[in-house]
Formats: sequence, structure tokens, C-alpha cells
Amino acid sequence: MFEQIITNVKNKTPLVHAITNYVTVNDCANAILACGGSPIMADDANEVEDITSICNSLVINIGTLNKNTIEAMELAGKKANEIGHPVILDPVGVGASALRNQCVSRLLKSVKFSVIRGNISEIKSVYKGSGSTSGVDANQADIVTKDNIDTTIEIAKELSKTTGAVIAISGEYDIITDGKKAYIIKNGHPVMTKITGSGCMSTSVIGAFVGANYEAILDSTAAAVACMGLSGELACEKIVKKDEGLSSLRTYMIDYIGKMDEKMLNRGIKIEIK
Amino acid sequence: MFEQIITNVKNKTPLVHAITNYVTVNDCANAILACGGSPIMADDANEVEDITSICNSLVINIGTLNKNTIEAMELAGKKANEIGHPVILDPVGVGASALRNQCVSRLLKSVKFSVIRGNISEIKSVYKGSGSTSGVDANQADIVTKDNIDTTIEIAKELSKTTGAVIAISGEYDIITDGKKAYIIKNGHPVMTKITGSGCMSTSVIGAFVGANYEAILDSTAAAVACMGLSGELACEKIVKKDEGLSSLRTYMIDYIGKMDEKMLNRGIKIEIK
Amino acid sequence: MFEQIITNVKNKTPLVHAITNYVTVNDCANAILACGGSPIMADDANEVEDITSICNSLVINIGTLNKNTIEAMELAGKKANEIGHPVILDPVGVGASALRNQCVSRLLKSVKFSVIRGNISEIKSVYKGSGSTSGVDANQADIVTKDNIDTTIEIAKELSKTTGAVIAISGEYDIITDGKKAYIIKNGHPVMTKITGSGCMSTSVIGAFVGANYEAILDSTAAAVACMGLSGELACEKIVKKDEGLSSLRTYMIDYIGKMDEKMLNRGIKIEIK
Repeated sequence: MFEQIITNVKNKTPLVHAITNYVTVNDCANAILACGGSPIMADDANEVEDITSICNSLVINIGTLNKNTIEAMELAGKKANEIGHPVILDPVGVGASALRNQCVSRLLKSVKFSVIRGNISEIKSVYKGSGSTSGVDANQADIVTKDNIDTTIEIAKELSKTTGAVIAISGEYDIITDGKKAYIIKNGHPVMTKITGSGCMSTSVIGAFVGANYEAILDSTAAAVACMGLSGELACEKIVKKDEGLSSLRTYMIDYIGKMDEKMLNRGIKIEIK
Repeated sequence: MFEQIITNVKNKTPLVHAITNYVTVNDCANAILACGGSPIMADDANEVEDITSICNSLVINIGTLNKNTIEAMELAGKKANEIGHPVILDPVGVGASALRNQCVSRLLKSVKFSVIRGNISEIKSVYKGSGSTSGVDANQADIVTKDNIDTTIEIAKELSKTTGAVIAISGEYDIITDGKKAYIIKNGHPVMTKITGSGCMSTSVIGAFVGANYEAILDSTAAAVACMGLSGELACEKIVKKDEGLSSLRTYMIDYIGKMDEKMLNRGIKIEIK
Repeated sequence: MFEQIITNVKNKTPLVHAITNYVTVNDCANAILACGGSPIMADDANEVEDITSICNSLVINIGTLNKNTIEAMELAGKKANEIGHPVILDPVGVGASALRNQCVSRLLKSVKFSVIRGNISEIKSVYKGSGSTSGVDANQADIVTKDNIDTTIEIAKELSKTTGAVIAISGEYDIITDGKKAYIIKNGHPVMTKITGSGCMSTSVIGAFVGANYEAILDSTAAAVACMGLSGELACEKIVKKDEGLSSLRTYMIDYIGKMDEKMLNRGIKIEIK
């Protein structure tokens, strides 16, 4: 499954332009390199159009947005649209401030996104135009369980239809849908929420995967999410075995992103289609 | 010792709003998560009041301050004061530039801090209004030794009285005082000064500890400092045993912050009251 | 070889002021500490002159430049020139945007650099005033091989003569020249290009080395590049042996920078003079 997608990432070395937060930017750059891409971070309004033009995809992550970078996100997004590059949005913490809500509204109006990835609270917030986000982690009340998974898939499908973007919701069950088909991925481990950057890295890896696979946005997104989840899972097993902790988890997670190939993925992937 | 404080951090998952430097921000976020809190970094003047309002405490670290973030620090600090959230100041490198001195003066005038944490040179600089800071590390001439520890405690107590904040001085001997009681903590290891971020992480962990323990600022600060010191100490032992180096030290330090509970702390804590 | 240079770094603890990108800033700070220096990152125009004045060298890295930091780079560079501190330029991604080209031109006009370090595409771009840079990695067409090494050395020598700076080109063959003498260093491993920050760390370590050795800029630069290359090489051997991956490589690389002394360097260095 996803063999061709992974092969394309390794062979094409997609350049990913990321306008991302300064908290996890190093992890994002290393995750892009590890999976086979090449990252370039640039967020000044005076250069983002140049930079996006030489890349294969654009990742916009609003984790530490400010008035200068919001402008840069919009300029870069429009340019990427103009030249047909996929644009991925990670609406980190949307719902937590008026500025984040306004930024996401503005971007959704002016930029066509290929993929929007967030936790369930962030996606609900984008869906409703307002949300119950508390900080940057998913609100307990929103958590996707077996009982509400069908409702959640419906929300994701509707948001996909209104935005035209593939929607990826991260959580115990990852949901990835293009409005018609939905993948449910059960890889990953709850302890991954105890390090910063799992979500941001996932978005960055999606950036590399779609950057090498313009014709297969849904499948590329699912493949990237599965690679991240499985890398986290294997890293968790390793720290338990070695009696290590959370920072070692982060290290091994990126180690496994670099080792992941279609064989390793197919041995570990837990995926179904709804 | 400090059992209830640690239990509260683990049970309440305090949200910590950090306006912090981009050098060690990732370590700070991971340290907050590891000790049981949840971090959110946001530094645009247009959103810091919103963000602080949904959090439990605010950490202000001036390590890479600029004209935009200074304004954001003041706005966030005032808002946190207004709604009764503890605010922690880390005056990184104060004394090294006029801008840092002016920033700290301005913040001390407009914001009431619950805790101020720094190395001895930074705290002396805040105390005197000018200092002998050389860069971001403590000046050799300022180092706390057995011989000058009583004088140093007196300075800390006086600064605590004038600011109303708990003062925490990091070094071979950590001093934590509320102007009356003083804890002296001897955990930690000199090699911790050879990685960036030990101090910033300590401040961030204090943010999580006081965010879950509004009624016990002094004890929470001491508990956080002890957890950090002991985590560093155990990490040092581990790299010596495994013949590893400074970057491994950082990894293991965060690993141990995540493993630290009241049992581990009580086995290792070296604390006295003056 | 380079014994005195390394001894000076360890004994003098040079303070390095770095205006650098937020992607790899943490690695740069840790690399500076590991090799024996002390880093301070500061990029606001209102304080960079103060900060540079208390340091021993200045590193300017344009990786995530913006309109505010470009001004700060120029101010700090001029100040460092005025007081005789060495200034090191890392023109990250020059050639990838008009802003980066303009920034480098402007800096080359107003600041005298002691060292300019980059990959071959970046150095060619500085040399020509325009380049074939694709992103932040070296363009395949530019790669230094046995066949074109002599031409590359000539370009480096010419650029050194026109700028007055030692030129350091990173790659399979590192070239370091002051326009007359050229060192060729063959340490390092191709996998180092699969993590972010190898180049930025190298520039930062050069900052520490020249900061402690004002009278030996060429040799200090060569020594720093060799230390970095050998640290990366040893780290690669270790991850292969332990079946670990790219993030572990980064960790061990910094571990080895911290362990590197003249004995270890002389056992592993692969250097020739042309």
C-alpha cells in the first residue's frame, strides 16, 4: 500500500517551503529531511513568493503567528495557488484567540488549501468558525472515540466539501478524507501527545509527501500520517524496552521516519477505509 | 516533601503561556509537557491577552526580546495580574544591554511577578538596577560559594521584599526565598551549564508547578527547582556511565523530568532551610 | 596540528554573538557551548551593538532573515568591525530569493567579514552575485568532485581576495582558503546532509574558534571545520553500529564536538594543503 507514493518522495526529494512556528521548527525541518524531502523555512513577506516558487509545496502552520508572518502566509499561499503547488494548513490552536480565528478565516478566503490537518478541536473550530479549543491540545470533550467516530467522519467530509481540501484529523483514530473516501488509521501511541511537535511534524511530512505526489493528495496525506504514527509507535516501544523517556521518544521518532520504507510501513500499518 | 505539589501538577495539567526566547523554546515546551503541564507559546501583542486568559500561568523570558515581544510581555503580564494568574520572570542576560535593563525595569513597574528566576549575575543585576553580567552565563566573580552564601541569601530576601516575588537563584547552590524562609538546594551538576536551556527549562517548569499550586508559590518554586536539578544530576550520571556527551545529557534531562515523581524526588533531593 | 588553537578555545571561553536562523539556533548554541565557547543570541536592532561589544566574535546567518534582523545584522557587523572583532557570514540559501541576494550584497558592502562559510552553491552565488541555488542545499550540478576541485579552489581564492575574508566551502571536500594557502579537509559523511544544521553549527563553531584566535583566522577556521567534520563522522559510525537514525546522529554529533580535543582530532583528521 502507498508504495509508489513513498518511492516518489525518496526519488524526487521534494522541496518544502514551511512558514511554521519557532517552537517545533527544528523537528519539522528534520522530519522533512528524514522522510526524503528538503525543507526551507522563510517567513518574510519580501521573499516568500520567491521561495515558494522554487519549492514543490507550501506548509503554513500558525503556531506562533504574528502580524508579519500572517501577511507572509497569505502572500505565499496565493503564489503557490497561482503556480499550482499544493498548500497544507496546520491551524495550531485555532479557537484559542481571536487573532488565530481571524487568521484562519482570512487564509481560507484567500488561499485554496490541498490539505488541512489538525487535532479534533482545531478541525471542529475551523468547521464551526469558533471552537472549544483549550490551548494547543485537543479538548477532552472533543476526543474521537469508537462511539463518535462516524459523526466525526461526517464533519470531516463536510469540511472537505466546503473547503475543497483533504481533511486530516489526528488522534487515537486518525481520519483522512477527501469528502468521499475516508481512511481511518490506528497507528501511534497516546504518549506522543506528551512531546511537542508530533502534529507539526505530521503536517510537515504531509508537505513532503504531497510535494512529490500532486496527483494523489488523499493517498499521500494518508501515507504521511501512517508513517508518522508508525514511527511514533516504534519509538514508544523502544523507549519502554530501554527504560528511557520523552526526549528519547522524540529522537527515535525522527530516527524511524528516516528508516521508514514501504516494507516497514506495510508490516505495521493499521488502516481501514470507510 | 512536596508530594501534594507534584500531585497537583500531574492531576491538573496546568496550561502555561510562555513568551520565551527562540533558542530554547523547544526544550521549554518539552519540559513543561514532561513535568505534567501543557505549554502554549504566543507572543503577538494582538493575541497574548486572549491566550493568557485560557492558561493557568504566564512565563516571561527575555532571552531574545525584541520591540514587538516587549510590548506583548507587558500586555500579557498585566492581563495575568488582572485575572490573578501567577507570572514568572526569567531576566536572561539582563545587564548585557541597555535594552534588557530597560525591559526588566519596565516590566517590574507594570507587572507584579510571583517568581523571578535567574543566575546570580542576573539576580544581582535586577537587584542593583545594573550588573556585571557577561553574556547569558553567570560572571565568575558572582558565583555563590560556601563563603558568600549568607550574603547572597540576604540579597535574595531583600529583592523578594521589594518586588513581592519569590526569588530563585540558580547555581551550585540554588536559593529560593519569599523574603522570610529560604530553601537551599544542592542538586544539579556543573556540566549542566555546558548545554543551553537548563535555566530556561527550570523557569518553565516553575511555570507549570505554580500554575497548579496558586496557594504555595514558594514551595512550588522550590519543588520545581529540585526536580530540574535532580533530573540534571541523574542525566549526568547516565552519560558518564554510557560514555556519552552533552547532547545526550539534554535528552536524558528531559527524560528524567518526565519520570520524576515524589518518590524519586525524595530519594534524591538535597535541601535545607535557612 | 591546531593544538594551540583548540587550547585557546577551551581556556578563553570566547563569547559568540550570533544573529542566526530560528530553525537551527538551538543546535548552534549547543555546538558553541560544546566546543568551549559561550553563545548569546540577540537580534533586535536596539541591542545588537551592546551585545556584540561584550562578545569576542559575531556570527551572521541569514537562514530566516527578515526586515528587522537584516538591519540588526548590519548594525552589529559595523560595530564588530569598529572594535576589531571577527565577523563570520553564513549566506544560507543566497540565490534562492532577491531578498537574500540583496541582504548579502548590502552586508558585503558595509561589513568586513573575517570568514564566509557556505555550501558550494552559496559560495558560487556570492562569487557571481547570482546563483543556481535551489533551496538551502547545494545544487547537484555544483557538487565538488575530484575533477572540479582545482577550479573550485580557484573560485574560493578569488572570492577571498575580493572580500578579504577566509572562504570556507563545505562538502565532500571542504575547502578553506585565505586567497593564498588552501586546506582541503575530507572528514565528514554524506548522511550529515540529511539533518538540518550541520552547516549552521559549523559556522557557529568557527565563530568560537576565531573568537579565541584573532591572529590565526585561516587555521582556526580549518580547525573548526575539521572538528565538525570528524564529529559528524564519528557520530555516523556510532549510529550504524547501534542501528539508530538521523536524530540520534545529531545528538552524537554534538556529543563528539564536546569530547573533541587535539588528540582525538589528530587521530582522525584528513587534511591536505594546496
